[in-house]
Amino acid sequence: MYYLLYPKRTYLIVSGKGNKRNVMAADWLMPLSDKPFLVGVAISPKNFSYQLISENKEFVISVPTLEMLDDVWIVGRNHGPEKLKETKLTFVPSVKIETPGIKEAAANLECKVIDTKKYGNYTFFVGEVIHYTYNKEIFPNNRPDVKKAKFLAHSSWAEFVVNEEKIYRKG
Amino acid sequence: MYYLLYPKRTYLIVSGKGNKRNVMAADWLMPLSDKPFLVGVAISPKNFSYQLISENKEFVISVPTLEMLDDVWIVGRNHGPEKLKETKLTFVPSVKIETPGIKEAAANLECKVIDTKKYGNYTFFVGEVIHYTYNKEIFPNNRPDVKKAKFLAHSSWAEFVVNEEKIYRKG
Repeated sequence: MYYLLYPKRTYLIVSGKGNKRNVMAADWLMPLSDKPFLVGVAISPKNFSYQLISENKEFVISVPTLEMLDDVWIVGRNHGPEKLKETKLTFVPSVKIETPGIKEAAANLECKVIDTKKYGNYTFFVGEVIHYTYNKEIFPNNRPDVKKAKFLAHSSWAEFVVNEEKIYRKG
Repeated sequence: MYYLLYPKRTYLIVSGKGNKRNVMAADWLMPLSDKPFLVGVAISPKNFSYQLISENKEFVISVPTLEMLDDVWIVGRNHGPEKLKETKLTFVPSVKIETPGIKEAAANLECKVIDTKKYGNYTFFVGEVIHYTYNKEIFPNNRPDVKKAKFLAHSSWAEFVVNEEKIYRKG
């Protein structure tokens, strides 16, 4: 019943290097610390991405927007890198690690794995974000502009929603 | 720059029991495993909630909707349980743990702490969800109905957004 915590933002995780690369969709991802900037992501050991991240100790978090929905669905539904041929995703070299980012994404966060721990039927990878690149129109002043992009969230397995443009400002 | 991962759903965390209780807002929260159902939440050791969860080894995740925005802002902005007097939140007894839930919430997930680990300047609490209650109109068929509730997400410190009602269905 983890759907009680949904809708939940979905992200892409790029893993691997050279010709052995993969992209998966992950909803179970969050910041863990701001100083240093650490993120945690839970990945099933059944995934090919799990193998690649375990081998290379690095991954990239790519932030998709509504324009990328078809490709998010393809990489989320299917296993293994063959699926990438069906997508329009373009790899771009990262600055500090060998795992590439995704050109079409609103942001790419380059992560080095600093801890790994099994919890239940998933494995929790902790990454230090050692570099990031982002679209400055979508993140002006280092904050997301919800009028400039519609960010994807899963509401159930095959259903996605996006944010409204309206902002509720407090304080 | 964790805001590159925003907007991010915000939840309420209830901690403590008897007259020593608190409620905080937390964005850094996610499922970790489905079998068993585990969740992870990152909390700063500066928070009173950190002390209460460390002492009692349990907490409740309460799922707020747009109607609760004023109270989410009050408990998120201020420290310590005195702030609760300013809110309209009502505690309700939980079924399996001593920490109460929140009546107005769309769902309450009762968690027992099974692991604690420091990552950077936050502490990661892993909870097993041993019981949950929820509003069946908002979660029919065990999935969120985004036409029935607007779920709150933080887009920056003092700005909140909600989901659109439109569903993008794939597959």
